[in-house]
Amino acid sequence: MTAPAPFSAAASSAATPLAPGFHGAVTACGLKPSGALDLALVWSSWPCTAAGVFTTNRVQAAPVVLDREVLARSASDIRGVILNSGCANAVTGPRGLEDARRMAELAATTIDARADQMLVLSTGVIGVHLDMTRLATGIAALARDEARRDPGLVARAAMTTDTRPKTAAASVALRAGTVTVAGFAKGAGMIHPNMATMLAVVTTDARVAPAQLDRALRAAADRSFNRISVDGDMSTNDTLLVLASGVSGVEIGERELAEFTGALTGVCGSLARQIARDGEGATRLVEIVVSGARTAHEAHQVADTIGRSPLVKTAIHGNDPNWGRILAAAGYAGVEIDPARVRLTFGDGAEAITLLEHGMPVAFDRPGASKLIARDPCLIRLDLGMGEASSTVWTCDFSAEYVRVNAEYTT
Amino acid sequence: MTAPAPFSAAASSAATPLAPGFHGAVTACGLKPSGALDLALVWSSWPCTAAGVFTTNRVQAAPVVLDREVLARSASDIRGVILNSGCANAVTGPRGLEDARRMAELAATTIDARADQMLVLSTGVIGVHLDMTRLATGIAALARDEARRDPGLVARAAMTTDTRPKTAAASVALRAGTVTVAGFAKGAGMIHPNMATMLAVVTTDARVAPAQLDRALRAAADRSFNRISVDGDMSTNDTLLVLASGVSGVEIGERELAEFTGALTGVCGSLARQIARDGEGATRLVEIVVSGARTAHEAHQVADTIGRSPLVKTAIHGNDPNWGRILAAAGYAGVEIDPARVRLTFGDGAEAITLLEHGMPVAFDRPGASKLIARDPCLIRLDLGMGEASSTVWTCDFSAEYVRVNAEYTT
Repeated sequence: MTAPAPFSAAASSAATPLAPGFHGAVTACGLKPSGALDLALVWSSWPCTAAGVFTTNRVQAAPVVLDREVLARSASDIRGVILNSGCANAVTGPRGLEDARRMAELAATTIDARADQMLVLSTGVIGVHLDMTRLATGIAALARDEARRDPGLVARAAMTTDTRPKTAAASVALRAGTVTVAGFAKGAGMIHPNMATMLAVVTTDARVAPAQLDRALRAAADRSFNRISVDGDMSTNDTLLVLASGVSGVEIGERELAEFTGALTGVCGSLARQIARDGEGATRLVEIVVSGARTAHEAHQVADTIGRSPLVKTAIHGNDPNWGRILAAAGYAGVEIDPARVRLTFGDGAEAITLLEHGMPVAFDRPGASKLIARDPCLIRLDLGMGEASSTVWTCDFSAEYVRVNAEYTT
Repeated sequence: MTAPAPFSAAASSAATPLAPGFHGAVTACGLKPSGALDLALVWSSWPCTAAGVFTTNRVQAAPVVLDREVLARSASDIRGVILNSGCANAVTGPRGLEDARRMAELAATTIDARADQMLVLSTGVIGVHLDMTRLATGIAALARDEARRDPGLVARAAMTTDTRPKTAAASVALRAGTVTVAGFAKGAGMIHPNMATMLAVVTTDARVAPAQLDRALRAAADRSFNRISVDGDMSTNDTLLVLASGVSGVEIGERELAEFTGALTGVCGSLARQIARDGEGATRLVEIVVSGARTAHEAHQVADTIGRSPLVKTAIHGNDPNWGRILAAAGYAGVEIDPARVRLTFGDGAEAITLLEHGMPVAFDRPGASKLIARDPCLIRLDLGMGEASSTVWTCDFSAEYVRVNAEYTT
């Protein structure tokens, strides 16, 4: 593997998706009618600690139910993740859960692990049972030489409607040595019919106790995946997993946890932004920063409401500096705001263009603002003028292509 | 005017928009560059009681601020409503409020009323001041013979991106006589750039005390306008007004209030469904009924979440019986549901087609389901199997035309 880039707030994308010591193998077993890669195994020769964050949808896919069970029982003894695309194994009842268990068993055999050391991820069509014959053949192939043991391909095998694989890596130098955090993700909400899943797997060679790993992952998710929105729909399968092998020999104790969490957040943030940018029909990443709020929660509420507004997102797609839609969305976020204190700018630094000051429209360079909106990323800054708290969310523009893809395909 | 249709749960649409005794006049004063009708005056020769329901957006347009003031002060002494399209008079600061007051004054003069007896409604571009010269000329024209004193046209003067005027009427026979409720509305959320307003005016010849009228209006709004969604965006100007002239001589006391509220709800419901059906780019009305919930609030939460899902709405546009998206939306509504109890049907009565039973997909007539979805209205029924409560919401399908209109226009 290539050396991971040094850690920065924006972790490097287009990076290797696996930390040193992790292996990856991929194959195409026919779950995708197109014959594209649809099966990936990620594993460590040593037991890992692991943590997961799952969809809060009340309808949970079989792999989500299984992974919760596995992590509750053996979060310090995980060997790997088996992932398929082409079938979500969701709304499949008791048989779906059996299939997920069998999938874990089959994958475990290929790496001399136990079934309860394996995590399972599925994405694809809802309400259809896994083709276990194809899956068993595919998993058997992963163990043999003909499988493509290329870590760079695991992100590709997870893709459904993603237009490009999503990977990120970061390293962090601690007193006891350097650890790497690397991961891959597939898109969410961008949503191919019946396919609506965000999956992400992050690996690290750090040694982290399960409780710390869980805390770090929740903090990272809260500042990354929980800050993106493509269309506001939430899947039955969304899962973010982290596996820590410890092979670097570098222990993450309480003292190192903040720095490790920073690296994990950097990787998750990069993956999350890649997902938002690759939204169905999207042409650019949109970053919305709301500042001057009374609390971080209120800042997030306002940023999130703006980021979900179809009117704001279509205006961005049209390069339209439509401050009225942004202000109206802020107004219905359910947060007490004083319109007379609001300041709205597009862009950043010396290039920034202000559209509203003290809540009133100001004369602005309209073609210039239009050009700023057309950039990737498109930066929107709203200051509420009421306090010190701020929040950032990422979304994408909203094009007719989104509707076309989601309407014209019939299951 | 033609006689209003007898009251039924579904009040007659394509009806006269004003109750007996109310007058309407319209003109084009140039606020709309197209030269279309953009000014309407609705008035009664007798003082009316009145009530209003307004946007909960924290950013409130000047006419909303003014009307709240007027109703707080003189809800039993209202003479009329002056309405313009082409300019929302929103985000216009203190000068906007002065303009709204002046608009009330000018309109009052033409009907020998006081300014504080007038309500004001505006819809159109945000952040632009009213052209008071044009408005004054237009209001003066309304008072003269050349204005078109055709009640049938007031709904047309209120239109922005609406493709057709929206009117509804109902009569209710009470012991003391028959009263009529008639109204008109313009669309919301369907939203022309910077125009995002639902306005509705309902008139009645019943005699109703302000407190009763207010209760009746809130109950009616809760079962009509508060049950529709086009794109989830909420305007700065949304307003529903009711004026009761009492000229029928029929008093609505506590005993008659339920029946009167029923007629008012029928009219508001018809107007609300007309608005949903006429959503930007929409091709049909979608009715979502969630039953078997533990509480009415939970039923509404689930129905509303389904009705707002872009994935559900694009699937309907594509005639796709995509139960997975409906179930997933129910799952993230924030309500405790048991997927194993869910039953989903499309259509109604003998034609209904069941897609999910006990939460599991059942074999169904796919072309038949597709045909049911293509109907106007498209009926979706979800039973949660957990209780007795139910709720209905109305929305529309979601087409690429929505995005085109909202993205390609640049302010």
